[in-house]
Amino acid sequence: MKFNIEAVNGNLTEQLTHKINTKTKPLGSLGKLEEIALKIGQIQNTLNPELSNPAIVVCAGDHGITEEGVSPFPQEVTFQMVMNFLGGGAAINVFTRQNNIKLLVADAGVNFDFESNGKLIDIKVAKGTKSFANGAAMTIDECNKAMENGAGLVENLHKEGSNIIGFGEMGIGNTTSASALLCAFTKCSATEATGAGTGLDAQGIARKASVIENALKLHKDITDPTEILATFGGYEIATITGAMLKAAELKMTILVDGFIVTSALLAAYHMNKTVLDYCLFSHKSNEKGHEVMLNYLNANPVLDIQMRLGEGTGSAVAYPIIKSAVDFLNEMSSFEDAGVSDKE
Amino acid sequence: MKFNIEAVNGNLTEQLTHKINTKTKPLGSLGKLEEIALKIGQIQNTLNPELSNPAIVVCAGDHGITEEGVSPFPQEVTFQMVMNFLGGGAAINVFTRQNNIKLLVADAGVNFDFESNGKLIDIKVAKGTKSFANGAAMTIDECNKAMENGAGLVENLHKEGSNIIGFGEMGIGNTTSASALLCAFTKCSATEATGAGTGLDAQGIARKASVIENALKLHKDITDPTEILATFGGYEIATITGAMLKAAELKMTILVDGFIVTSALLAAYHMNKTVLDYCLFSHKSNEKGHEVMLNYLNANPVLDIQMRLGEGTGSAVAYPIIKSAVDFLNEMSSFEDAGVSDKE
Repeated sequence: MKFNIEAVNGNLTEQLTHKINTKTKPLGSLGKLEEIALKIGQIQNTLNPELSNPAIVVCAGDHGITEEGVSPFPQEVTFQMVMNFLGGGAAINVFTRQNNIKLLVADAGVNFDFESNGKLIDIKVAKGTKSFANGAAMTIDECNKAMENGAGLVENLHKEGSNIIGFGEMGIGNTTSASALLCAFTKCSATEATGAGTGLDAQGIARKASVIENALKLHKDITDPTEILATFGGYEIATITGAMLKAAELKMTILVDGFIVTSALLAAYHMNKTVLDYCLFSHKSNEKGHEVMLNYLNANPVLDIQMRLGEGTGSAVAYPIIKSAVDFLNEMSSFEDAGVSDKE
Repeated sequence: MKFNIEAVNGNLTEQLTHKINTKTKPLGSLGKLEEIALKIGQIQNTLNPELSNPAIVVCAGDHGITEEGVSPFPQEVTFQMVMNFLGGGAAINVFTRQNNIKLLVADAGVNFDFESNGKLIDIKVAKGTKSFANGAAMTIDECNKAMENGAGLVENLHKEGSNIIGFGEMGIGNTTSASALLCAFTKCSATEATGAGTGLDAQGIARKASVIENALKLHKDITDPTEILATFGGYEIATITGAMLKAAELKMTILVDGFIVTSALLAAYHMNKTVLDYCLFSHKSNEKGHEVMLNYLNANPVLDIQMRLGEGTGSAVAYPIIKSAVDFLNEMSSFEDAGVSDKE
């Protein structure tokens, strides 16, 4: 798929910096909030950015790799958690309600027949991927279809006036997929990339790393980013990859969540590096390989509170801090306006 | 002053932990949010804690030590910033508005005659402290008066139904006061304790450290915590110390802000160590000595986003994350409620 992503231009950088620096506060004293305010001002190309209709899209999909015993939870938890999202009882429901973020839940490829439900977006490509221990998880066509689906979702949200979007995921087995993508895209070792996921013990982590290592050997000749995504990814991951690329094309601010969502970004980044111009990193996940991803992308996330839940929860919890950045830029007085003496 | 602070009891710890652990999420996957939920449940001694009428009290005071050239801003900025608070244009106004936190502004000891204003709480003890380079900043009576004032403010807020409270400060010269308190209470060196404040260069920081070092020598025989606070503190700092002790007595959750507010807590802690049972640390300030304070108090703050503005802004920005913790504890489904399979 081709996306036409324009680099963020720096036309207003000097004026934004001046606006930030003349607020009634010691220079630089809002730290990361100042960086965020500058970045969103640049993305929106205005001195008065706004966050409109923030949304988080949770994409769910199942993974054939679970056959290899890589997760302590059974595969049925994927559809059960989708039902939990629809019922309003999951963590992402709580945090999006708290922070007035619109929540969308999409079936990107769950191994379950849901009853037709107005609340669930049906973009199922197939009932779960195949195991990448034996072959590719998806065909290129299936992977492209999932990416198109993600792009379509984002296009709709953009039409409804949303200019900031986060992504979440649910899929038993998907940390295995994300670890394999991390290795394939950054050439780090399976050991560096593999963590506890939903709660493996040391033995389980070692087995999971060995599954990944063998799969990397099997698929060692693959270099095209879409092919890498199709080989190791999942439907929810590919959907998010396409969604991020479309969001960047539409000049929306992208809130990047934890390990799985960042693996989707790794794929997007290898397809089009400019996508990073539109990304804010919500949090550093406690899932082991996330730090490797963040370092690779030179990313400096807002929160580091040892979360590793997925579902987009890191983005939902970090959102008020992003809003603080935009609000101070718009609402704080300058030294001149407030009649406050500046540094002598 | 005496405060009767009851230690937080652990009666419900097991039940709270069970409630947290049976939510639909991998064990421990909400990281610091789980610690916060547990702590607030313990403080309120309930499985269903609530955050009621959150408030931030900003206390302002002037400092005689500014005579020694320790700040790049003139003293008049203290009253000018108080006017900015009353006008709604300061950072703390923006962030408390955003997060529905009640903001109170108190003149604890500003060197300015404010016109009577319904918005400004007049608890002025004196028009600024004396320079602690020559003698004590306050008399013991003045220091006690400021502490009583703080306690009174908190008592009123508690009567109005507030059960979570943060503190902010404004006072040109007060990082010098806070650094001296840090040295006096923890025996660290002036160099370790002294940072850039509102923006000193390396030469300015060295001069400030030397002012502090000389003052520590002058007052080296003082060991009583109230006397230390009176000697090196400020009216806004002593007001916050008394306020924190009263808040703990009333079993309120205390949001601890950055460098200055933590210096007030150091004093409170040396008067009554149990105050810590009621404290949540909002953020790690970028002001150099804050890390020393946090380590001394064994504190693990929520945010580390390089803020160093004061005014209580760290607490105001961190508040939604505290709320996320309480909300997940109250609103998330358990595995059983949601019909989700637990770990195999």
